[in-house]
Amino acid sequence: MKKLNIAIAGLGTVGCGTYQLLKDNAASIEESIGTSIHVVAVSARDRDKPRPIDLAGVRFVEDTLALADLPDVDVVVELIGGIEGVAKNLCEKALSNGKSVVTANKAMLAHHGVALGALAEKNDVSLSFEAAACGGIPIIKTMREAMVGNRILSVQGIMNGTCNYILTRMARDHLEFADVLAQAQALGYAEADPTADVDGFDTAHKLCILTALSFGVKPTMASVSIEGIRRISSVDLAYAAELGYRLKLLGVAKLHKDGIEQRVSPCLVPLSSTLASVDEVLNAVQLQGDAVGPLNLIGRGAGAQATASAVVGDLIDLARGHKVNPWIRPSSSLTDFTPLPLEGRIGRWYLRLQVTDKAGVLADIAAILRDNAISIESLLQRGKQDGTGVPVIIVTHQTNEAKLRAALAQMAVLDTVWEEPLCLRIEQE
Amino acid sequence: MKKLNIAIAGLGTVGCGTYQLLKDNAASIEESIGTSIHVVAVSARDRDKPRPIDLAGVRFVEDTLALADLPDVDVVVELIGGIEGVAKNLCEKALSNGKSVVTANKAMLAHHGVALGALAEKNDVSLSFEAAACGGIPIIKTMREAMVGNRILSVQGIMNGTCNYILTRMARDHLEFADVLAQAQALGYAEADPTADVDGFDTAHKLCILTALSFGVKPTMASVSIEGIRRISSVDLAYAAELGYRLKLLGVAKLHKDGIEQRVSPCLVPLSSTLASVDEVLNAVQLQGDAVGPLNLIGRGAGAQATASAVVGDLIDLARGHKVNPWIRPSSSLTDFTPLPLEGRIGRWYLRLQVTDKAGVLADIAAILRDNAISIESLLQRGKQDGTGVPVIIVTHQTNEAKLRAALAQMAVLDTVWEEPLCLRIEQE
Repeated sequence: MKKLNIAIAGLGTVGCGTYQLLKDNAASIEESIGTSIHVVAVSARDRDKPRPIDLAGVRFVEDTLALADLPDVDVVVELIGGIEGVAKNLCEKALSNGKSVVTANKAMLAHHGVALGALAEKNDVSLSFEAAACGGIPIIKTMREAMVGNRILSVQGIMNGTCNYILTRMARDHLEFADVLAQAQALGYAEADPTADVDGFDTAHKLCILTALSFGVKPTMASVSIEGIRRISSVDLAYAAELGYRLKLLGVAKLHKDGIEQRVSPCLVPLSSTLASVDEVLNAVQLQGDAVGPLNLIGRGAGAQATASAVVGDLIDLARGHKVNPWIRPSSSLTDFTPLPLEGRIGRWYLRLQVTDKAGVLADIAAILRDNAISIESLLQRGKQDGTGVPVIIVTHQTNEAKLRAALAQMAVLDTVWEEPLCLRIEQE
Repeated sequence: MKKLNIAIAGLGTVGCGTYQLLKDNAASIEESIGTSIHVVAVSARDRDKPRPIDLAGVRFVEDTLALADLPDVDVVVELIGGIEGVAKNLCEKALSNGKSVVTANKAMLAHHGVALGALAEKNDVSLSFEAAACGGIPIIKTMREAMVGNRILSVQGIMNGTCNYILTRMARDHLEFADVLAQAQALGYAEADPTADVDGFDTAHKLCILTALSFGVKPTMASVSIEGIRRISSVDLAYAAELGYRLKLLGVAKLHKDGIEQRVSPCLVPLSSTLASVDEVLNAVQLQGDAVGPLNLIGRGAGAQATASAVVGDLIDLARGHKVNPWIRPSSSLTDFTPLPLEGRIGRWYLRLQVTDKAGVLADIAAILRDNAISIESLLQRGKQDGTGVPVIIVTHQTNEAKLRAALAQMAVLDTVWEEPLCLRIEQE
């Protein structure tokens, strides 16, 4: 039987999951592809750390970069992480040495994906990264292979399981962000430093990768407008439900006539939409192709086993001798782009203002909206709260964002409006 | 630039859609894969039928089977349809002549898939059929490639757009089956002879293909328990909604310890489930993998463009030189199987009985359920209808199907029960 020899760099959750999955399902993989996949070497920062896998008989290499020099290694699997440093050096060295690379490193790809792609093409090897965007969901394969006959018009979705878990729990259990975050950290669903997840950067990394694959542009973190979920309160989830919506952190990239819109922000989606049904740690990606129409892929975006499934999927392609350009088109043909300013975007909005509960406040706010030609679809104000003002919820009709921003600036100077209004886009209608 | 020369047999909706898509997106396809895809010959029953495509300059071959003999053709695309006849003869001849085949013919694959797969393997060519299961949804690629590292535990979904359209319209507009079917036929969403769709055979063909890919068994139509949607009434959709469900025609195949469960039937799914959000002509397929967990793919299951997207996806794989066994494992290793009898299945049920509106009827029915150890979760009876009896709706707790069938047999002999009760499985909880 033919053999594919691999080295795994990084033995964290995904590294161990990959090792174990290759072992558990070795027989069925071999029967299916006629090639056996062997882990011939591994490397990790701490050799002696307790791990849930049995590494007996596997070569442990102290110097991680040395994996790229082993003559019996065909593929280096990079599961270390980090934009720069060992991960990037290892990938560069492996590709330069004519070894294919499989990586789950979305941050590295969002920042250095073009150069790494070009290096892979120059050396006629593969750079595979199914595990870098939405874990077990085969979105990269779908875009690089199944959808190549389509022009992609948009890509969007729920790309961060931690945020989706937090928003799901806040909605279901009427809890506040900080409380659910603390619970999620205790359960291991959120990192000790949650910034990458809850502030939207992880979603932005994935969105950069999907934008590049969709539109033939360079992945460009600097071009993503990013807003996280820290300002969401349980009242927003309750009001959203009352108005017929769910609240989700979305990454969105759309091709317009005059350019590409690209953003990460919490949005309202209708209760009856597919995205509204995507709860807990699940991810969802929605493509719109000119031929296929709408296509939704939903599955686990993280976790040892789901991510390992993606890594092993890439290895199976390599074992079968399948090769695809990392970014579909040749890396040298990817273009720079400046995203469209969001000011021109037309859409509906959910606004939450915290205001003093006295006569005339609503009249002032309504007048500002009217003066900016923004019409109100619904307005909710309820109850009285001690000392912190009362929330006013407004859903607008379609407006462009420039008008909305102008109205918000005028509201901000009212001394009856207590804090910066929360503004959420309404999507998917 | 490298070339892939193809011949298209059958110029109906999908044939014309494929021809047009290859033409419209030729430049971006060539840039992505470095190979141009040329239609060098076509064949159809009626050469002069008006078609929405410009065939000027394309060789028209009167004898369809002759396409398989053309020396300059690399791939034959079979879009004729039919279990036997020209379609099958053409595929056999092309494969025997060392040409790869791309087909959308689910009925042929469900009946002759193993033999055709073996023939492709023997001649070292490909048999690709992404378009044969759920149109534009890349479920075949996902199973044959991305999920090969997983053991698949179940596959199920909404696999027929015509039925889903009918059920969606019945629910939304409170219409009866026959009325919506007539409208769907007028709109071209349903065939003049709707049997293949509404009686579940089309779903069963697709399910056979997906069962084979999931579990390494031979596609076996005879093993599918099939029930269509003709008996569904608008009252069922209304009651389902009231109880918190949507009604969908599902194909289901599950691996159990003692065998494979395989069936097509209308089922209730919870309103909050992803399947409940899949409306109109959309299809959905849900896989459960041992590593990836649940994976949902949702998109257009039919239509010229979506199906063409799948055909072109297969052609792109061939142009890239990618080759995969038709059924993942070698066709010779696919095993026969006898599906598990449904009698042993445990689950909840929705029952609708049409009964005489008089004292004691409900007591009789409740006694029969009790005597068969089936407990009732909810029971609805409302209003009085002239001459046709009144509907009684029962939702059961978990029971095995043998007990339910026994209870139904006892109810059937009551002269207060007017017709065979409608029984729908409740899924996805």
